[in-house]
Amino acid sequence: MSTFGTLFRVTTYGESHCASVGAIIDGCPPGLTLSAPDIQTQLSRRRPGQSNLTTPRDEKDLVYLQSGVEHGVTLGTPIGLLVKNEDHRPHDYSETDLYPRPSHADYTYLSKYGVKASSGGGRSSARETIGRVAAGAIAEKYLKEAYGVEIVAFVSSVGKIHMPSSTPASADSEDDDVTGDVPSSEFRELLSTITRADVDKFVTRCPHPETSERMIQRILRAKDAKDSIGGTVTCVIRGVPAGLGEPVFDKLEAVLAHAMLSIPATKAFEVGSGFRGTEIPGSLHNDAFVAKEGGGLTTVTNRSGGIQGGITNGEPIYFRIGFKSPATISQAQATAQYDGTAGSLAARGRHDPCVVPRAVPIVEAMSALVIMDQVLMQNARSTAAGRLAPITTLPPTMVLPKSN
Amino acid sequence: MSTFGTLFRVTTYGESHCASVGAIIDGCPPGLTLSAPDIQTQLSRRRPGQSNLTTPRDEKDLVYLQSGVEHGVTLGTPIGLLVKNEDHRPHDYSETDLYPRPSHADYTYLSKYGVKASSGGGRSSARETIGRVAAGAIAEKYLKEAYGVEIVAFVSSVGKIHMPSSTPASADSEDDDVTGDVPSSEFRELLSTITRADVDKFVTRCPHPETSERMIQRILRAKDAKDSIGGTVTCVIRGVPAGLGEPVFDKLEAVLAHAMLSIPATKAFEVGSGFRGTEIPGSLHNDAFVAKEGGGLTTVTNRSGGIQGGITNGEPIYFRIGFKSPATISQAQATAQYDGTAGSLAARGRHDPCVVPRAVPIVEAMSALVIMDQVLMQNARSTAAGRLAPITTLPPTMVLPKSN
Amino acid sequence: MSTFGTLFRVTTYGESHCASVGAIIDGCPPGLTLSAPDIQTQLSRRRPGQSNLTTPRDEKDLVYLQSGVEHGVTLGTPIGLLVKNEDHRPHDYSETDLYPRPSHADYTYLSKYGVKASSGGGRSSARETIGRVAAGAIAEKYLKEAYGVEIVAFVSSVGKIHMPSSTPASADSEDDDVTGDVPSSEFRELLSTITRADVDKFVTRCPHPETSERMIQRILRAKDAKDSIGGTVTCVIRGVPAGLGEPVFDKLEAVLAHAMLSIPATKAFEVGSGFRGTEIPGSLHNDAFVAKEGGGLTTVTNRSGGIQGGITNGEPIYFRIGFKSPATISQAQATAQYDGTAGSLAARGRHDPCVVPRAVPIVEAMSALVIMDQVLMQNARSTAAGRLAPITTLPPTMVLPKSN
Amino acid sequence: MSTFGTLFRVTTYGESHCASVGAIIDGCPPGLTLSAPDIQTQLSRRRPGQSNLTTPRDEKDLVYLQSGVEHGVTLGTPIGLLVKNEDHRPHDYSETDLYPRPSHADYTYLSKYGVKASSGGGRSSARETIGRVAAGAIAEKYLKEAYGVEIVAFVSSVGKIHMPSSTPASADSEDDDVTGDVPSSEFRELLSTITRADVDKFVTRCPHPETSERMIQRILRAKDAKDSIGGTVTCVIRGVPAGLGEPVFDKLEAVLAHAMLSIPATKAFEVGSGFRGTEIPGSLHNDAFVAKEGGGLTTVTNRSGGIQGGITNGEPIYFRIGFKSPATISQAQATAQYDGTAGSLAARGRHDPCVVPRAVPIVEAMSALVIMDQVLMQNARSTAAGRLAPITTLPPTMVLPKSN
Repeated sequence: MSTFGTLFRVTTYGESHCASVGAIIDGCPPGLTLSAPDIQTQLSRRRPGQSNLTTPRDEKDLVYLQSGVEHGVTLGTPIGLLVKNEDHRPHDYSETDLYPRPSHADYTYLSKYGVKASSGGGRSSARETIGRVAAGAIAEKYLKEAYGVEIVAFVSSVGKIHMPSSTPASADSEDDDVTGDVPSSEFRELLSTITRADVDKFVTRCPHPETSERMIQRILRAKDAKDSIGGTVTCVIRGVPAGLGEPVFDKLEAVLAHAMLSIPATKAFEVGSGFRGTEIPGSLHNDAFVAKEGGGLTTVTNRSGGIQGGITNGEPIYFRIGFKSPATISQAQATAQYDGTAGSLAARGRHDPCVVPRAVPIVEAMSALVIMDQVLMQNARSTAAGRLAPITTLPPTMVLPKSN
Repeated sequence: MSTFGTLFRVTTYGESHCASVGAIIDGCPPGLTLSAPDIQTQLSRRRPGQSNLTTPRDEKDLVYLQSGVEHGVTLGTPIGLLVKNEDHRPHDYSETDLYPRPSHADYTYLSKYGVKASSGGGRSSARETIGRVAAGAIAEKYLKEAYGVEIVAFVSSVGKIHMPSSTPASADSEDDDVTGDVPSSEFRELLSTITRADVDKFVTRCPHPETSERMIQRILRAKDAKDSIGGTVTCVIRGVPAGLGEPVFDKLEAVLAHAMLSIPATKAFEVGSGFRGTEIPGSLHNDAFVAKEGGGLTTVTNRSGGIQGGITNGEPIYFRIGFKSPATISQAQATAQYDGTAGSLAARGRHDPCVVPRAVPIVEAMSALVIMDQVLMQNARSTAAGRLAPITTLPPTMVLPKSN
Repeated sequence: MSTFGTLFRVTTYGESHCASVGAIIDGCPPGLTLSAPDIQTQLSRRRPGQSNLTTPRDEKDLVYLQSGVEHGVTLGTPIGLLVKNEDHRPHDYSETDLYPRPSHADYTYLSKYGVKASSGGGRSSARETIGRVAAGAIAEKYLKEAYGVEIVAFVSSVGKIHMPSSTPASADSEDDDVTGDVPSSEFRELLSTITRADVDKFVTRCPHPETSERMIQRILRAKDAKDSIGGTVTCVIRGVPAGLGEPVFDKLEAVLAHAMLSIPATKAFEVGSGFRGTEIPGSLHNDAFVAKEGGGLTTVTNRSGGIQGGITNGEPIYFRIGFKSPATISQAQATAQYDGTAGSLAARGRHDPCVVPRAVPIVEAMSALVIMDQVLMQNARSTAAGRLAPITTLPPTMVLPKSN
Repeated sequence: MSTFGTLFRVTTYGESHCASVGAIIDGCPPGLTLSAPDIQTQLSRRRPGQSNLTTPRDEKDLVYLQSGVEHGVTLGTPIGLLVKNEDHRPHDYSETDLYPRPSHADYTYLSKYGVKASSGGGRSSARETIGRVAAGAIAEKYLKEAYGVEIVAFVSSVGKIHMPSSTPASADSEDDDVTGDVPSSEFRELLSTITRADVDKFVTRCPHPETSERMIQRILRAKDAKDSIGGTVTCVIRGVPAGLGEPVFDKLEAVLAHAMLSIPATKAFEVGSGFRGTEIPGSLHNDAFVAKEGGGLTTVTNRSGGIQGGITNGEPIYFRIGFKSPATISQAQATAQYDGTAGSLAARGRHDPCVVPRAVPIVEAMSALVIMDQVLMQNARSTAAGRLAPITTLPPTMVLPKSN
């Protein structure tokens, strides 16, 4: 189904070549100041045609608010919004229609539904993410105003080109990983300070000048070869209160993984120390507690990525998502038609050689949707508990100390 | 909340030291032959005390069916079941109660609820997974009988010790990954043939004799050092029909990631080519189609991991999950008490130095729950479509060809 | 939240005076022929300005399909649609804004959200039902084509004026209700045969000429007095297969009641014999079984209203809904302002003196949504059970006989 | 499915003759003092064998808490509980197994599942309500402690014998209902003051001595005739804060109707003025506002039943539910066997001639579940809104005045 979230809930519609794509955002707190430009900013960061690294399709992607807001203030009722599909060009795709695109969704949609859209990706097109980005922009605005939450995503690798200090897991070895330096103090510092403005200084959205330059060359090489290349996006969420996340099935990292792997072309997700953390002994991997200024506890390191037992501990949340190389390429590929006839397909149309720069606002949007929903869930619980008389009959080690 | 699934739905209860842990499984198809031993087999693979690699707690974990089954046949009504908590021993833990365990859930539970269980992990204990394994065993039995689905998980790494051919992503490099050999043909063959019996020949549940031996030594080294070590589990699901998975927010890989990262101690998930797939150009990464014997299409390679556009294509589904090194270790750690006082904690009690061997049936269970739910979802849709008159007004490229 | 349904799901947005009202319908089976006129018919039966009995606002309520349909066939993807709000006229309402309308939603919306729409009913306006009617029209089209389901609602009372044979419960009495003639054979015949065309012959949508005439006079009397009057709508659903409905919490009558009492201005719901059935001894009230032509069983009477134990038995489903007299009247009422100041309110604007004629398509729509969702739910279960080997180990009285 | 609620959620299992019936209650606020006796009280009011008016089966129905509570305080984790089935006696039912009981669920369960429990009602037995009552007792305890909410249900009619002032709708008439005295001031007074202790003074649970006596005679007459009789239960909920209930599809009255019509044997529901309210002109039916002591508004009358636009206004909520005459009677009935053979069925076993006295705690439980869930939903929203800066840019008539 096309709905995400429990209390802050987005439902989307739209194929790549229908009248419009849109969304209904339900559960937005009333009293939030909101107008179209608040949403447009992130939509514009997502849209095609931003640089010579992305598809030349120039879609304006203007958002039209339909409901839920009056005089620039949310009413608490569902917010309807839509973006018109201006650039149809179905003819671009027509000659190749006998082939399901390799590693694309043509074949599986037809297997599932018995029918599929006549052109383009239909519902599997990346235009589907417009509704997510719009909804995420609303969630993000609330989180910033109410909690000071900051969400920043950036490109951490393209192909084999990685930002320094972003450390994948090792190859087979007898040795231990005794450094335990995950994330490196340098990278942890970056996660603590990076802003969206820092990221947008680079056309790649990789905030490391030298690496960004190498990435540009790599992407242009793919473009010239009528080929494509993948990459990873890292995201940090700062300022999230402790106590968010539902234990057991809806641990926060589980819901984040769900959200991120629902983005088209994703194949991998890791939170905190991730796969690398599997190699570091517990004695080095554990995040020791120390007293926090102003009360409560903080951790010396943050290999947990801000989540322990599925619940936030107040430290920055960070994670990394892998995006495969785009499936649609202009290079000829040997593959079969729907009826099994062997042949060769060279995709027509205009396609991104690398999607990660445009994926950045989508990752931020999905992050905001997850955190927003969890804030509302935890509100429900903690406000209810707050109405009860203080607990006096339990041993003190079972009860939250006053200093917290 | 403690519920997983939409149409096949498991709800669990239980802390580590209460009367029992249990589950209600709702939505099981009626007419399935089922009795306690069908469930006990997987519970016994999960329970502690199976070898000198795991915790010496010897819990029998006998399951008691309460409802939903008569004369060994399911009625279609909810199946209640429970496992008694026999080995309470709360005194084992009492002296250390002033400390939240580093990287464990003590601190975050208290932040969330304001109160927590008096001893052990409470709800965050791995005993919580008993209900999942029981529910998964029921789902798995249905899937095997109705579709011939086979689900096999195994340990693919412990610390830095990896099975051959399981290939993590590369370090920073200018070069391209031009082999595209992901997964290697050797590993793809293993994924196509491995059985649960193969896996259980090894105490590590790593089905590669030499690697298994090295893993044993690594785990014992951690045990001797009162330390712990992490690892990865790989899982393959064979025989799944094409067309499962909900596009957009509930793509099959998203729901699988959600399911897997809800297992305690998990930090990472990748499907198909995973993070490695981000490095391989599209022209090498794409899975070309060829005609399948008996009609329809199959793919030459399977970097997609059996899922394209969030929907199964009929090829084997495979993925890998990273488990961090267990947080609870007997070694002394410098860390703070709840009230901020600095000190040192050496956990008492009996703990697993490495959880991945016991995680194998949990991964299988969560896999079965996901696939089962998607089978029911797709049944709803495809049976409904099947009652409509054939589509005659659309261009043939929009409609599933007869040969499929 | 503004979503209804589990597998066939409608989500709506829109206030009375925003840009548009609309809906996303998710879960429609693929391959259904569908175009705007299929939806427009029911929207036009719902819209204001149809006769001198309803509000003179003349809103065209043209529906615009946005997605989910290509070349007149559904794709299985979400169907977005919207209807523009043409007749804003916020000034009509401005002078009375200091008063919460008695028995309307102004006061409670403000209590809930702390903010409310500036004019009209906002989200509580009956325009909200446009999305329901549109979604219901799609569900209904599927049900008709796939199962031959027929849904017909009609007005059964206005004020104290009742159609013959629609029999409310009795006043206090020592006597038994020994006739058990509920519904009367005359009314049961009407339920079996009535069509939407029969209903639309009457401006009141009460398909009994003499009663309809009396109702017209009653409504005009209310209109002349700047007052309003309530009524009841009866609905029958024919052709529903046996086995729909979820036992326990989601019994079919429970979900129908939920659906119907979610329609604005409703206060009461009864299914089958309803309140009257509480007065008839079990020996007279029970519906005896007899063999049905072609196999299976049917019932001699139908006091159950087609539902037993929360599950359909294949007989016609019928129920009755009570709509209160509309709250907004032009007559002056003594009431307080938001700040507690006593005063007098005479609503401006144009209002329906009686809503039941326009409620008929809304009741039909909600009926279709409920049945459609249950069809999909039951598909999921029964298709799954159908893949299992036949049950051979149970006593025959536990298993569905072959003749069924 | 067997789950009710969104944030406070109960899932039940159990047939009449399996090992136990039980429930998992998820979402209970942490820090609530709770022990088995808090639950047992309502279970004992529900259990059979309380008087000569109910079935002579004497089931103790002792509840066993499994989890979620330590040292008498809730942890915020799921509460597992169960009640053993002690009184199986499957032989009592065996001779009549060839017949589906008229108006019972035997036939429809078999139609739905293709298989059914071998004896008794299986899942459709009233024993299923044990889990509801237990869950409701927990919800109710919270609501009382946190908000002072009081929930009292009582029997308002048996057969045609009604409590004074409970006024069903009228028969066909030209006249208007000009009194508007609904509910009568006498009945409104009773709704404001009645306690559970008042109700339990009467074996019928009808708190009007003379009517109760007449009801006893009526029930005994049914019992002597091996017949059964229905009745109605009225319920009032006092002390509910304004602002609960979700507009549109989950209006509070809709969810209450859903909850109540999910109770076995129910056929009808009305809230506030109910069906009678359809007969009273708007000018007489509307509840005028007046200033409330201490700020805010109250209503002079309460025909709305405490709910306006689907949202509570702070006045007492009251509603009435119709229970049909029980289907299982010892009297011989002409009816068909499953295979269509005509015959005669006289039910064996012990059955209630009238269920309404025992239905009282079930109605209270379902009421508590609904209100509890809505409290948590509204907490989520209002706490979120409370973190935003005050609204200063809107006209004052759009914003909640300070005096509220």
